[in-house]
Amino acid sequence: MKGKPLEMSLLFDFYGDALTEKQRAVFELYYHDDLSLSEIASFAGITRQGVRDSIKRAEHTLEQMEQRLGLVGRYHMIQQCSTALACETERLRSRNHTALHDPIVGEITEHLENIVRRLRQEVSDGI
Amino acid sequence: MKGKPLEMSLLFDFYGDALTEKQRAVFELYYHDDLSLSEIASFAGITRQGVRDSIKRAEHTLEQMEQRLGLVGRYHMIQQCSTALACETERLRSRNHTALHDPIVGEITEHLENIVRRLRQEVSDGI
Repeated sequence: MKGKPLEMSLLFDFYGDALTEKQRAVFELYYHDDLSLSEIASFAGITRQGVRDSIKRAEHTLEQMEQRLGLVGRYHMIQQCSTALACETERLRSRNHTALHDPIVGEITEHLENIVRRLRQEVSDGI
Repeated sequence: MKGKPLEMSLLFDFYGDALTEKQRAVFELYYHDDLSLSEIASFAGITRQGVRDSIKRAEHTLEQMEQRLGLVGRYHMIQQCSTALACETERLRSRNHTALHDPIVGEITEHLENIVRRLRQEVSDGI
């Protein structure tokens, strides 16, 4: 049943507030503490089927929130851009260091590094 | 009363779904169609004070959503990063064109331009 734990964890980080308190508790035991449905059932005093239903409803709510707001998709996109930008910035720094020795390129590299830092900050604030 | 129409418009674009249908209608007449409170009151068949209260409640809801999710702040940040990156990319292209003529720098410039395009796409999808 536990299909995409990493994706579900991200969805929970962004939209967990939209779940009921009980759904949040069950979701965390299942996805974060890695308990089985039966373990959660005996822990929470509900049936195994009740636990399964609660998790399914929570997953559905989180997926609907993502369809509406798309925050997790955006998070992945910004992360990819910041990684690609860091890579190109490093190539430019290295090229300037080994071959060009151009002060303008040095300055551009520093500005690019600042932008990488801001994007990375944005990604880490995102969760 | 109409304090920050641009900011309110952005908040509405991101979180308008969280308002009631009536609040959305009044909000749009006030902020998008630029009608006065009195005009909206006679148009909607409610008191001027009723219109004012409805707009205040809507503004409060939108601001609370922003405090919780911060989408507008993130939108501004990504927009600033994409503008700064476009500027540095253009400087690098120009420097390479006039002085360096380095194929590696040419390649890096093209990759940077792709990243600018993706970030801009992200910004325009954001609304």
